[in-house]
Amino acid sequence: METAFFNGKFLPKDEIKISPDDRAFLFAEGIYEVVRWYEGFFYDMISHMTRLKRSLREVNILWNGADSFPDIARQLIGLNRLDQSQALVYLQVNRGGARRTHSFPDPPLEPTVYAFARDFVPENSGRDNGVRVMLREDIRWSRCDIKSVALLPNTMCYQEALDKGFFECAFVRNGNITECTHSNIFFVIHGVLYTYPESVYVLSGVTRKNILRIADQAGMAVKTEPVSLEMLERAQEAFTTNTSGEVTPVIALNDKVIGNGQPGPVTRILRERFNEELCSLRHS
Amino acid sequence: METAFFNGKFLPKDEIKISPDDRAFLFAEGIYEVVRWYEGFFYDMISHMTRLKRSLREVNILWNGADSFPDIARQLIGLNRLDQSQALVYLQVNRGGARRTHSFPDPPLEPTVYAFARDFVPENSGRDNGVRVMLREDIRWSRCDIKSVALLPNTMCYQEALDKGFFECAFVRNGNITECTHSNIFFVIHGVLYTYPESVYVLSGVTRKNILRIADQAGMAVKTEPVSLEMLERAQEAFTTNTSGEVTPVIALNDKVIGNGQPGPVTRILRERFNEELCSLRHS
Repeated sequence: METAFFNGKFLPKDEIKISPDDRAFLFAEGIYEVVRWYEGFFYDMISHMTRLKRSLREVNILWNGADSFPDIARQLIGLNRLDQSQALVYLQVNRGGARRTHSFPDPPLEPTVYAFARDFVPENSGRDNGVRVMLREDIRWSRCDIKSVALLPNTMCYQEALDKGFFECAFVRNGNITECTHSNIFFVIHGVLYTYPESVYVLSGVTRKNILRIADQAGMAVKTEPVSLEMLERAQEAFTTNTSGEVTPVIALNDKVIGNGQPGPVTRILRERFNEELCSLRHS
Repeated sequence: METAFFNGKFLPKDEIKISPDDRAFLFAEGIYEVVRWYEGFFYDMISHMTRLKRSLREVNILWNGADSFPDIARQLIGLNRLDQSQALVYLQVNRGGARRTHSFPDPPLEPTVYAFARDFVPENSGRDNGVRVMLREDIRWSRCDIKSVALLPNTMCYQEALDKGFFECAFVRNGNITECTHSNIFFVIHGVLYTYPESVYVLSGVTRKNILRIADQAGMAVKTEPVSLEMLERAQEAFTTNTSGEVTPVIALNDKVIGNGQPGPVTRILRERFNEELCSLRHS
C-alpha cells in the first residue's frame, strides 16, 4: 500500500481525496517540484526547495511549511521502503479550495499540500546512443520560469512528439530554441556549450544549473545565450537535462542530424562528471 | 445541501472527491463550460455544447457523453431548486487519472466529469455606468481558443487588475488588444464595432458571437479585426461580454478614458437588444 502525504498527514494514497473546489483542479493554481532520490540521498534538494519557494511567491501562494519539504520527502522514502531504490518524490502545493471565482480567495486559504514517492526507471535509460527531438513553435505562456501545474501545453506537445516517433519536443520562440516540454536543452557549437538564459521563457532546471557548474569547473567555454534555428545548423552536439533523465544525448532535431549522429565528446564528459559527483555524494 | 454531478451520478457535493491522480489536478488537462440559466431556460446551450466538443477534440479527451450536457445541466437546476433563479451551471471534463507521466494514458481513460449549479449575482450588476479595465501584455499560451482549466495566467492577471482597482484585465498581444481574462472585449471606432477575430488568441465567446449577430441584425457596421493600441486612441466606446456578465460598458482602459467616460449609444442599443432577446426567450 502506497503511503502519500496530504495536508500534514501521511496516509494511504487511496484515502487522499481532493475537493472539487481545489483551485489546482479548477484553475491550475498549483506549484510542484520533483526531487530525485539516489538510493540514499536526494540530489540537490536545496535547489528544489529554493525554486519551490520562488514559484509559490510568484503566484502568491502562502505556504509556511516549505522548509519541511526535505523532511516530508525523506519520510515518504522511508514509509514506502524506497531507501535502497531509485525514486522520485513529487510535491504539489495549491492555493486551496473555495467557491469558484477567478479572484484569489480573500483572506488567503491554507494551501492544499500533496506529495508522493515512487520508484522509477530513469526516463533516458537505454538512451545512451542518443534520441531524436521534435522542434515546434512554443505555444506555452510567458512565465515558464514558474513551475506550475498549468501543464496542458507541455503534455499536448510531448504527446505530439511521441506520436511522431520523437523522444521529446523542443520549443522555438522568436526563432530561438528555448527548452523542451519537461527538460532543458543544451548545444555545443564550435566548442562552446550553449543553453537558453534564465528568463521567463525557460524553467531554471536544477540539472541545467548543475551541468552549467560542472562544465565551468571542467574549464569548458559556456554561454547562457539563445541558440537560434540558424545557429542550430552549426551545432556539433546537443543534449537535454532534467531530474528524471539527468543528461540525455540528442542526435537529431526534426530531420537535422546533429554532428555525426552520435553522442559527442562534450556530452560524454559532462555525463561522466555528473556521474562522478553522484558517486562521491553516494559515499559521503 | 448542494447536489452536484460526478461521473454519471448526482450526489451531495460534499461527497465528491477527486483522485490526486486526476490529470486536471496534475496537468490542467481539463475542459470546462459555464452556461447561464435565466429563470426557466439556458441561454444558447447549443453553442456551449458545440464549443465543449471542439475543446475536447483539440486536447484529445474522448467523452462520448457530451450530448448529455443539457440534460445534466437541467437536472442540476431542478435538484438544487434553482428553477426560478438566476443560475450558472459549470461542467468540467478531464482526461482521467493515472500514474503521473507527461504522456497521455494509453489506452485513453474514461474522463472525469464534474458539474455543479448555483445561483449567482451577475458579475456586472450595479455596473451600468461602466467599469475601468487594466491593459497588460498577454502572458497566456497561444491556444486561448481552447477552454481549458489551465487558467493560472488568467487568475493571476485578473487578481492583479482587482488589486489595482480595475474591474477586468484586457490583454495586449503583438500590439493588439485581444480579450480579457474571462471576457471578450469590443470597441466602437468611427461608428464601426470591432472585436478581435476568432483565432488562437481569443476564446470564441458565446455572448461575443451573439452580440456580433445582434449588431449585424441591427444594421451596424461590424469588423472582426484586431484593435491596436494606436486605434484605441480613437475609440468612442468599449464593452466586455461574457456569460456571467452579458454586456458590461467599459469607460476607461488604464488611464485612457473612452469617449466621454460614459457608456455610449452603441453599447446601450446592444444591451437593449440583448435584453429584448432574453425577454422573448423567457416568454417563448
